[in-house]
Amino acid sequence: MPEIKRLFLTEADVTGLLDMELALEALDDAFRARSSGDVRNEPRKRIPTGNGSMNFMAASWTSRGWAGHKSYVSGDFRVMLYGTNGEGLIAVLGAGRMGQVRTGAASGIATRYMAREDSSSVGIIGSGYQAETQLEAVCAVRDIKDVKVFSRTAEKRERFASTMSERLGVNVIAVDSKEAAAEGMDVLVAVTSSVEPVITGDMVEPGMHINAAGNNSWMKRELDTAAIVKADLVACDDIDQTKIECGELMRAAEAGHFAWESLVRLDRIVAGLRTARYSDDEITLFESQGVAFEDIAVCGRLYELALERSVGVELPG
Amino acid sequence: MPEIKRLFLTEADVTGLLDMELALEALDDAFRARSSGDVRNEPRKRIPTGNGSMNFMAASWTSRGWAGHKSYVSGDFRVMLYGTNGEGLIAVLGAGRMGQVRTGAASGIATRYMAREDSSSVGIIGSGYQAETQLEAVCAVRDIKDVKVFSRTAEKRERFASTMSERLGVNVIAVDSKEAAAEGMDVLVAVTSSVEPVITGDMVEPGMHINAAGNNSWMKRELDTAAIVKADLVACDDIDQTKIECGELMRAAEAGHFAWESLVRLDRIVAGLRTARYSDDEITLFESQGVAFEDIAVCGRLYELALERSVGVELPG
Repeated sequence: MPEIKRLFLTEADVTGLLDMELALEALDDAFRARSSGDVRNEPRKRIPTGNGSMNFMAASWTSRGWAGHKSYVSGDFRVMLYGTNGEGLIAVLGAGRMGQVRTGAASGIATRYMAREDSSSVGIIGSGYQAETQLEAVCAVRDIKDVKVFSRTAEKRERFASTMSERLGVNVIAVDSKEAAAEGMDVLVAVTSSVEPVITGDMVEPGMHINAAGNNSWMKRELDTAAIVKADLVACDDIDQTKIECGELMRAAEAGHFAWESLVRLDRIVAGLRTARYSDDEITLFESQGVAFEDIAVCGRLYELALERSVGVELPG
Repeated sequence: MPEIKRLFLTEADVTGLLDMELALEALDDAFRARSSGDVRNEPRKRIPTGNGSMNFMAASWTSRGWAGHKSYVSGDFRVMLYGTNGEGLIAVLGAGRMGQVRTGAASGIATRYMAREDSSSVGIIGSGYQAETQLEAVCAVRDIKDVKVFSRTAEKRERFASTMSERLGVNVIAVDSKEAAAEGMDVLVAVTSSVEPVITGDMVEPGMHINAAGNNSWMKRELDTAAIVKADLVACDDIDQTKIECGELMRAAEAGHFAWESLVRLDRIVAGLRTARYSDDEITLFESQGVAFEDIAVCGRLYELALERSVGVELPG
């Protein structure tokens, strides 16, 4: 076996190595691999720590020879990556920025395979740090001309509009209601921590693709049940995790307006085993929970890139 | 907040810091803390990697401010430890030797609180690397005069007898049957990877305490059902994990000869909430699965000791 380099990559190292293109490539491959059983995923678990919780989630990717997990406590996110062909530990990575980019990229993959090919406008509800990568990912997979953003604080949504207009070279306009952000848009993104729905049934138009990327707690929801009922197809990153974390689908299912049996795993769509839309009028919805195999896919690529570029501290033993 | 030192401790670092006394102290405290809900534990999970699996298990200890997890792939064991009061990651530790010592220490704690006070003899079945720490732990908590060891290969059990006689200053004799290792012994330890039972009902004598420490797979078992039926009390480290990993109790329960409701968590005995034995004639059995809170308890102490002694590599960021 060739010599193994074990790397410790800080947040700054990862931020320097990672871009949306890498994340989109890694996730496209990973979703495809998952459809054949090559990728395995364990849903997130939470264990109380007294003043919060430790979250941890794990995955493996057999053909790449990677297995690992992400965990986080009080805002410190770390991934541990093992090689599964005798290497043992190969990397420990700071995973805060990584999580933000991979969550954007997951919505990018959903948009690539579910939204109308000619989608050219995006409405985004939410203007926090996760909103930036959501928008960046959608703009990377469709030829987007117009973006509207709404969030509750005028100053924040205006700052988001000017920052993102400049960064992406796209016209981002701040609007003063969620309805105005949705009206006439091809793609609609919700990325909030809202408890009350921000996308209601009346905002959902024929042909729309929706990414619900904000929440991963059963106590919260971004869509009301009327909006969910309007969707012709609901896809997710992981069914097990969606069943325990996706508040809006859990409520819709409880009320008898959504059948878990109809929920489709995004990897099946990416792999061409399921058609996302049969017409330009259909409405598609991606429920993003954020799952471990996305982390492992991106961190595996980051490890390879760090080796190439000699980034990071080499760990002993 | 004072400056946080994040340490990377190799197997060699840990081996230099760790001894049975530290592990016994850490586990005695941890079992006691668990009885009040201060310690939380998540059972081991296994995720396939193609040519094996990644195992991972997590725990937290609120009052100490620690949370973390152990994982392992192809024999490389690592613990990641977080501080839960804003510190984030505090240590990554090599955890192979640590696991061996903490598994011994768990049997030591069980023996301390469950075996007859006047226990002076130990029979041990198995002579692998886990057997050494099992014996060391029992000798640390009782005044042991006589030890008999049996394993299938004469050379191995004789080497074990001479090595351990010297190391522990106790008379360890290799015997040529499992029955001879059990006969007349106060404490009996099984630490094998046997599929077929090595402790059968006829070997179990009044007043005996048994530590079953070898297996953590539902496919294996060390005791037959007749031996389990003879026990007046069966304790374990974690009920959830025992129900999915302890082959011998699973079989006994399936056959209607053991009731899960009667299974007692060792922490309740340590904390004095449950009496282990009401007479010197009673038979007690500890089923050790090896659980995450034991790892976190020992690794938390190792981190503190490493800081004191300036051991390990400091991690950036």
